[in-house]
Amino acid sequence: MNDSAMAPVKVEVSLGARSYDILIGAGLVRRAGAEIARRLPGIRAAVVTDANVAARHLEPLRESLAAAGIEAAAIVVAPGEKSKSFATLEDVVSGVLAERLERGDAVIALGGGVVGDLAGFVSGIVRRGMRFVQVPTSLLAQVDSSVGGKTGINTSHGKNLVGVFHQPRLVLADTDTLDTLPAREFRAGYAEVAKYGLIDRPDFFAWLEKNWQAVFAGGPERVEAIAQSCRAKADVVARDEHEKGDRALLNLGHTFGHALEGATGYDSARLVHGEGVAIGMALAHRFSARLNLASPDDADRVEAHLKAVGLSTRLSDVPGGLPGAEELLNYIAQDKKVSRGALTFVLTRGIGQSFVANDVPASQVLSFLEENLTP
Amino acid sequence: MNDSAMAPVKVEVSLGARSYDILIGAGLVRRAGAEIARRLPGIRAAVVTDANVAARHLEPLRESLAAAGIEAAAIVVAPGEKSKSFATLEDVVSGVLAERLERGDAVIALGGGVVGDLAGFVSGIVRRGMRFVQVPTSLLAQVDSSVGGKTGINTSHGKNLVGVFHQPRLVLADTDTLDTLPAREFRAGYAEVAKYGLIDRPDFFAWLEKNWQAVFAGGPERVEAIAQSCRAKADVVARDEHEKGDRALLNLGHTFGHALEGATGYDSARLVHGEGVAIGMALAHRFSARLNLASPDDADRVEAHLKAVGLSTRLSDVPGGLPGAEELLNYIAQDKKVSRGALTFVLTRGIGQSFVANDVPASQVLSFLEENLTP
Repeated sequence: MNDSAMAPVKVEVSLGARSYDILIGAGLVRRAGAEIARRLPGIRAAVVTDANVAARHLEPLRESLAAAGIEAAAIVVAPGEKSKSFATLEDVVSGVLAERLERGDAVIALGGGVVGDLAGFVSGIVRRGMRFVQVPTSLLAQVDSSVGGKTGINTSHGKNLVGVFHQPRLVLADTDTLDTLPAREFRAGYAEVAKYGLIDRPDFFAWLEKNWQAVFAGGPERVEAIAQSCRAKADVVARDEHEKGDRALLNLGHTFGHALEGATGYDSARLVHGEGVAIGMALAHRFSARLNLASPDDADRVEAHLKAVGLSTRLSDVPGGLPGAEELLNYIAQDKKVSRGALTFVLTRGIGQSFVANDVPASQVLSFLEENLTP
Repeated sequence: MNDSAMAPVKVEVSLGARSYDILIGAGLVRRAGAEIARRLPGIRAAVVTDANVAARHLEPLRESLAAAGIEAAAIVVAPGEKSKSFATLEDVVSGVLAERLERGDAVIALGGGVVGDLAGFVSGIVRRGMRFVQVPTSLLAQVDSSVGGKTGINTSHGKNLVGVFHQPRLVLADTDTLDTLPAREFRAGYAEVAKYGLIDRPDFFAWLEKNWQAVFAGGPERVEAIAQSCRAKADVVARDEHEKGDRALLNLGHTFGHALEGATGYDSARLVHGEGVAIGMALAHRFSARLNLASPDDADRVEAHLKAVGLSTRLSDVPGGLPGAEELLNYIAQDKKVSRGALTFVLTRGIGQSFVANDVPASQVLSFLEENLTP
């Protein structure tokens, strides 16, 4: 089968004047120039990428851009979360300005979540907002950061605490780029795929329980799972672009997850984002059962599926150990989704029945953490 | 006359969900707590200011906030344009995060344009957008940066090339704070006041020709001139919030002005922003006459008024001399209002009849500069 001959699946993100398309399919890096030039005629561009991704995909992308008449500089940052810093932000901003790009020109992010978040932030602040195109090359980036316009960097006070909302003009999710992902990274991205089922699509979660092996193997089910994920996120974002209400649902598993990332020092050898989210989702379902909101059977079912794909689900699974419950709670309280001192969690009434709870007493979280830290 | 007993003048900036009030009058620093608490109940805040302004106005502001139940930290930066840097941005962002302020809390800018642009940028990126309140203490900040939501910092590539559009929730323009401004700074701010007349309010310009002495002296005419300026800018911004068209009118005098600021190394001993704008406006009118768009009499009238208030109007007035015409043109071409290589200028058909010209040949600008560099 010649994948690249298949037409990509299109998901439209409806945000009024800021609406845009996500194309999902094989061979999109090689078609990027044509797709971008058709939508943004006459632009120049800067491609922001990291050294690892550049080695595989930068030349094909630049050739495709050149063939479509798009002059594009390349700005290559160091791979890894450390590039989401003020120092790298300033470097990339300077690189874009040195190219004398204008507001109508584009910053193109070629890479995973780090590159997307960083390049998106750059495009949102250079000349108070340039055009932005995303070419996500990790599963996590394709199903998460490609939808919603969240951009940002980290600080010593926490992750993603500095950034802007800045929507891309186009997202090209080339599924070929996933073939070379390490298994661990693909699995971590899959946690976010499962999340969309758990938020409000119980049928999608059931479909994943049945089809996850094909999604991992790279068949048409993979394109389908990515498209469903993008559609699910797009629906939530369209209802609440700037995270004033509903959008908080997307944080299912993230409040616990961010705390675990913080407690492990954002050390990717120990825990990457998706792994934290997987444990966080399992905990959110367990916590909801503990609060008599949902059946323990649902928590069991979530755990079973995450385990089946090879993801961790318990605090004791985090390698290297964790601090005590009090310290974990501190990480949670610093999390930016805290509103006026009350603890906000995404809880659930069952598979696909998540909701935002704004008034969870810290004491209940603390005792739940204590129970789960001692297996 | 007890100024502080007079009710402030209110100007509403109409931007749909982002609409806000500008209050203009005496004694507003002392009333800030009550005005803010009424509109944003229950918030905490960080006041960003510079060392000079802090010495005069920080304590009265904090007392007023405390009296209204608003807990407020103070973040004091060095005075001057150098604080519009990535380094200071990072410092202030860290300061705000250290206070654990949330999205619903406020950054309050107390100071002139530098503090407003910097603090506004901080409030636009911390947690992807906090609430923002401005207490502008210079004439320039009261009539210019308090309207329109432009925020930003400078880079080695130019001024204000990095920032976001982020509208304040409230602006408190306390005219008492202008009494201690150096005469030169007040005069420079006045250039922007005159600009609003020259853009599209010929009656306001005629009123200023008649009443400028009372505006400088601090009578009710001062409040009136500030209110008219805010109204004029608010009208333009309401038509074009993100500077896609009409808003470019506000750059009258600024393309030449920014080039002069660049050519003098942003050395405020030689030239401050408003002085550059004054020369720029005179040149824009002279250039328009040279292109047979407007009568030379109008250019004479603009020059005469700017000279009357003590502002410079010619390139030869810039102390320390200027580089050649080619180099000045380079500064213009780097200006961010350049669109796709064509030179964009605000030109005029007469007093209060400005328009945006997107297709001014560089050769005409060059020869005009050459003529004006050799007096």
